[in-house]
Amino acid sequence: MKKIKGSLTLPAPLVLARQGSFFVNQRSIHSAFPAAAGVLEPGHISVKVMYVQYQVPQALAPGLHPLILVHGAGHSGKTYEETPDGRMGWAEYFVRCGAPVYVVDHSGRARSGFDPTPTNQALLQGRADLVPAFRHFTNEQAWVTFRLGPAAFTPFAATLFPVDARDQYFAQLLPNTETSYPEGGQNTVDALAALLERTGPAVLLVHSQSGLYGIQAAAACPDLVKALVCIEPRDCMISDAQVQAVFTRVPLLTLFGDFFGLETGVWPGRMQACLQAVERIRAAGGKAENIYLPQRGISGNSHMLMMDRNNQQLAGMILDWLRLNAG
Amino acid sequence: MKKIKGSLTLPAPLVLARQGSFFVNQRSIHSAFPAAAGVLEPGHISVKVMYVQYQVPQALAPGLHPLILVHGAGHSGKTYEETPDGRMGWAEYFVRCGAPVYVVDHSGRARSGFDPTPTNQALLQGRADLVPAFRHFTNEQAWVTFRLGPAAFTPFAATLFPVDARDQYFAQLLPNTETSYPEGGQNTVDALAALLERTGPAVLLVHSQSGLYGIQAAAACPDLVKALVCIEPRDCMISDAQVQAVFTRVPLLTLFGDFFGLETGVWPGRMQACLQAVERIRAAGGKAENIYLPQRGISGNSHMLMMDRNNQQLAGMILDWLRLNAG
Repeated sequence: MKKIKGSLTLPAPLVLARQGSFFVNQRSIHSAFPAAAGVLEPGHISVKVMYVQYQVPQALAPGLHPLILVHGAGHSGKTYEETPDGRMGWAEYFVRCGAPVYVVDHSGRARSGFDPTPTNQALLQGRADLVPAFRHFTNEQAWVTFRLGPAAFTPFAATLFPVDARDQYFAQLLPNTETSYPEGGQNTVDALAALLERTGPAVLLVHSQSGLYGIQAAAACPDLVKALVCIEPRDCMISDAQVQAVFTRVPLLTLFGDFFGLETGVWPGRMQACLQAVERIRAAGGKAENIYLPQRGISGNSHMLMMDRNNQQLAGMILDWLRLNAG
Repeated sequence: MKKIKGSLTLPAPLVLARQGSFFVNQRSIHSAFPAAAGVLEPGHISVKVMYVQYQVPQALAPGLHPLILVHGAGHSGKTYEETPDGRMGWAEYFVRCGAPVYVVDHSGRARSGFDPTPTNQALLQGRADLVPAFRHFTNEQAWVTFRLGPAAFTPFAATLFPVDARDQYFAQLLPNTETSYPEGGQNTVDALAALLERTGPAVLLVHSQSGLYGIQAAAACPDLVKALVCIEPRDCMISDAQVQAVFTRVPLLTLFGDFFGLETGVWPGRMQACLQAVERIRAAGGKAENIYLPQRGISGNSHMLMMDRNNQQLAGMILDWLRLNAG
């Protein structure tokens, strides 16, 4: 850290060996309806593709593997960039710690694009039944579901989410385009496996909706996943076969924030599912752990832990765990 | 450049003072149909917002202004990142030359999201007429329209576009979501003006579809645009009032690649419109220039000049022009 004017501190410069972006899991299809206005000729388009943006630090830290960061429902790779209130996000933090970092947009969302064939066909043929359902979290749903902050109906006075910057957060929510498409989730799983083939052995860090994608990608290529880190995963569904074949080899960390005393909401149940998965993996001889932050004396974390005011502390905790457990 | 193993050369490390991303031009609306599956409660969502990703080099070059890079139809900010064949894109090149760089996704596209209200309403109410038209360039259309490479019907044998990496290029094409929405293009113009308010005086570099957005953003805040660079703009529509009020102050550069002898296509006509605009601005005492690359002895450039094999040469030419003309 460099001090300027005796008070303000700036982080040291960020020194990168290289950066860039590319696509994986591309499939070419013939679309009969690539448009519903303008030039209408049928032709080929790319679908199921996943956009990947990466940075490789100049100084690699010994013992740290590359990290692949996967966002949750209603979000894009923006999740891991600058926080809504302008602080450093997890992607840059991990790079500064010496790890190559890959940030993705789910297949069928944001810079990964989506297939407009069904909507264009619906418009041109009057077939409303063909229209896919594009779910967008409203601000009100996000506020409650993601346990962001204080409200008449919740006691979140101690939230660490940067609630004053809520507008910058709401701006990043976008439609879950891919969930409406055939094999929407499976496309991201396939794309993560393709990405792992390209990066080589890496840590997979997933959030919320992507919890299951992480489990399935680890199952698809267990030799390439040095550890799976699930940040408040919606699911911890791991079959007995997967426990044996995958998670006796792939260390698993699940991490949950503060439920703010709302023991009847969805989150305690989701953590309970993870605790059971952790126990089954341990019984089979694997490495697995759940961290419930309030039990570590850390209160106030929302569902968006990578944006909370203690986001660097949490990222450091994850790296400490990886150094111990991801060989 | 650092030599390794006596043959391969690697670029020097990239040293950044800071980087990040944020949103501008956010509007909150009440959506009656934020979803058509799952949780269906109406509520507020953010629309018209524009995603901006930026990098500021540690060593700023004297005389270079920040650059705002705006993509064209069917593309996202990915346009200016790593090229399809894995070389450095214009965004990183300009940063390495010492300029802060801001890369955007049009309002209503890619990480900027889009409003799913009309499609969800169409599905729930059986109203196919409400479905917006989402145009996606097919590979075949892109190949011809963007003059990418050789084909039975075109003589592009000398193209500088990295045709062997065409699949990575096709993967980045995505639906023009925003063109179907109310004020689709105007939202990006408004967002560029909001971005300029935040960055302060900057150079606006636009491509293809965004040519008109650049002209309109310059007209909205001429004191904040140090120069407008239009890369193969679709339009050069500048009114007499704009010539006087805007372009006597804002220098204009328009730049075109190789038409490969296809003098009957759309591109010669588009350049002709720019040549006329340039003449009118000069007659009014402003600075304006059109560069037609073959007249400078540079043959083989496609519509995607920022991806062509000589992309760094072209970026350097643009910087040279800016140093001379953008005070």
